Amino acid sequence: MATTNVKAYGTGAPDAPLAEMTIERRDILENDIEIDIMYCGVCHSDLHFAKNDWGMTTYPVVPGHEIVGKVTRVGSGVSKLKVGDFAAVGCLVDSCRTCSSCEKDLEQYCLNGWVGTYGGFDKHLNQPTHGGYSQKIVVDENFVLSVPANLDLAAVAPLLCAGITTWSPLRHWNVGKGTKVAVVGLGGLGHMAIKLAKGLGAEVTLFSRTPGKEKDALDLGADAVIISTDEAQMASVTGKFDVIIDTVPYVHDVNPYIGTLAISGTLVIVGYLGGLEPILNTVPLIMGRKSVAASLIGGIAETQEMLDFCGKHNIVSEIELIKMQDINAAYERMLKSDVRYRFVIDMASLKD
Amino acid sequence: MATTNVKAYGTGAPDAPLAEMTIERRDILENDIEIDIMYCGVCHSDLHFAKNDWGMTTYPVVPGHEIVGKVTRVGSGVSKLKVGDFAAVGCLVDSCRTCSSCEKDLEQYCLNGWVGTYGGFDKHLNQPTHGGYSQKIVVDENFVLSVPANLDLAAVAPLLCAGITTWSPLRHWNVGKGTKVAVVGLGGLGHMAIKLAKGLGAEVTLFSRTPGKEKDALDLGADAVIISTDEAQMASVTGKFDVIIDTVPYVHDVNPYIGTLAISGTLVIVGYLGGLEPILNTVPLIMGRKSVAASLIGGIAETQEMLDFCGKHNIVSEIELIKMQDINAAYERMLKSDVRYRFVIDMASLKD
Repeated sequence: MATTNVKAYGTGAPDAPLAEMTIERRDILENDIEIDIMYCGVCHSDLHFAKNDWGMTTYPVVPGHEIVGKVTRVGSGVSKLKVGDFAAVGCLVDSCRTCSSCEKDLEQYCLNGWVGTYGGFDKHLNQPTHGGYSQKIVVDENFVLSVPANLDLAAVAPLLCAGITTWSPLRHWNVGKGTKVAVVGLGGLGHMAIKLAKGLGAEVTLFSRTPGKEKDALDLGADAVIISTDEAQMASVTGKFDVIIDTVPYVHDVNPYIGTLAISGTLVIVGYLGGLEPILNTVPLIMGRKSVAASLIGGIAETQEMLDFCGKHNIVSEIELIKMQDINAAYERMLKSDVRYRFVIDMASLKD
Repeated sequence: MATTNVKAYGTGAPDAPLAEMTIERRDILENDIEIDIMYCGVCHSDLHFAKNDWGMTTYPVVPGHEIVGKVTRVGSGVSKLKVGDFAAVGCLVDSCRTCSSCEKDLEQYCLNGWVGTYGGFDKHLNQPTHGGYSQKIVVDENFVLSVPANLDLAAVAPLLCAGITTWSPLRHWNVGKGTKVAVVGLGGLGHMAIKLAKGLGAEVTLFSRTPGKEKDALDLGADAVIISTDEAQMASVTGKFDVIIDTVPYVHDVNPYIGTLAISGTLVIVGYLGGLEPILNTVPLIMGRKSVAASLIGGIAETQEMLDFCGKHNIVSEIELIKMQDINAAYERMLKSDVRYRFVIDMASLKD
């Protein structure tokens, strides 16, 4: 099929820095929307994929799944958006659309495998999908979101992954007015969890391993900060939280947090893929009907709901805007957690 | 306060067999009901307590918390039951009644500590509580249950622990018509889980480690049996179950069962107290928004609901009736899982 070459940033090997390359985008099909990418957030997954940390990368890889831009072309069957509208794309660009998950607007749990914005497989082009570190992207309208007009577009970008990843469990576990929520970890996901839980009316506490984040957390809307290495502080929140959103991206002991869950409470892991070490103890789970759960991004309808909610409540991510050419330095800083709280690439820089 | 001496069966040391002894029961207070115990189920916890397996036993211990009998006296303030009525007592005989759990009819999660039917502390007598391996028991009416008149009283006894322990999670996780439930393990808890889930209208599958239980499981109402050590059988139920009730009372690998949960499904541990080994892998949890939870017996209102449900649906436990004097042999057989599916003591034998 006809394609268009566009400039992008990607890498051909795990140990190679990201650099400019050319990729193909398919010409628009009947239901496609072509988007001129204005901003793309930088997610930890981008870095993991670039370096093949999860052993599933096909090279070359062009990361980026927190995409905001402007519609430049639409297929003849498109009704959702028109040329000139602002649009967003998150982690998914397609799914089977027919399985029981897709039928329930849970495309992120598509039983036949959803198509990732990068590292997925484009059945039209018959090649891997490429992400938002690029000038343009072409996506079926069913996987394109509308962007509330009142929000800072650059700061909207991280909502497409960090935002929905925390929004989905907050909604699924019925967080609202009167709910007591704790957030473990203050990074890209954690700072969005605080903002969104607060927006939903919850009382929000941040768990942090080290002092020094209190002011930032309170500025983001948290009601309290608990230093998780301080036994007295931990004891002061025994049995308190209805929902804990655990955003820590590496192996860590979740057992101490179980004690801070209220009866029937749930700890939801959204950041860590792997085995729970030290081992999870069932005694405090049984003694309080508690759950350890996990959650993956969110569906398309839920993502639109989140964006609309953010528009209404004026919620965006805290970002540091960078140029495309600075991405390798940004990755280095991410590895040191030196970012408050999300890098977003100004894609105009790719035109330089 | 005034007390009455009654015959009981208990032990004074972890390595001593159970033998006849005399214990005190308090005279009835304003809200108390005195029950002549007719039947008492034999729970694994009885054995664990007698042998101090959990390190929390105060000796002498008189086990038994699956109690059915006839009301012989009531206090002046009692309205729930009258002399001559059949009555039941389960695992709890008191709680603080004022904490947020008690206010929600979740006495089993009383934040100030519920009072166990044995091994608890009787604030009136200022001594440990003693269980149902005895002639009589005196319990506050708020912790006494009514027994449906149409049921076999001996076979009702195990409902008070094995029944409610599986009923509570089935109800909390909304099992009903159309729900797909799996039960891990076919013992006292497992056989009740099958009957109750089936009664609620669910499609029920038994997971068993070894062949040979198919006929029994189907006779109990299961729709299917999956041998968990057979990879092909396990693969055939990938992503199937909304709720899994895991009744296995010893450490075991729950990871293979996670794969059989449907999207948003929950595995509920009701039998095992300890660390989850091998370690729980979060990847399949994240990829399907799955939960690992645990649950403890049930509250008083919920226990009554379960008994009424069993009355309506004619559900009782499968039991083997024994004499009080046979309890030590019964414990030996329980350790070999040689019971279908619950021993119940005919307490008339204690009068011999």
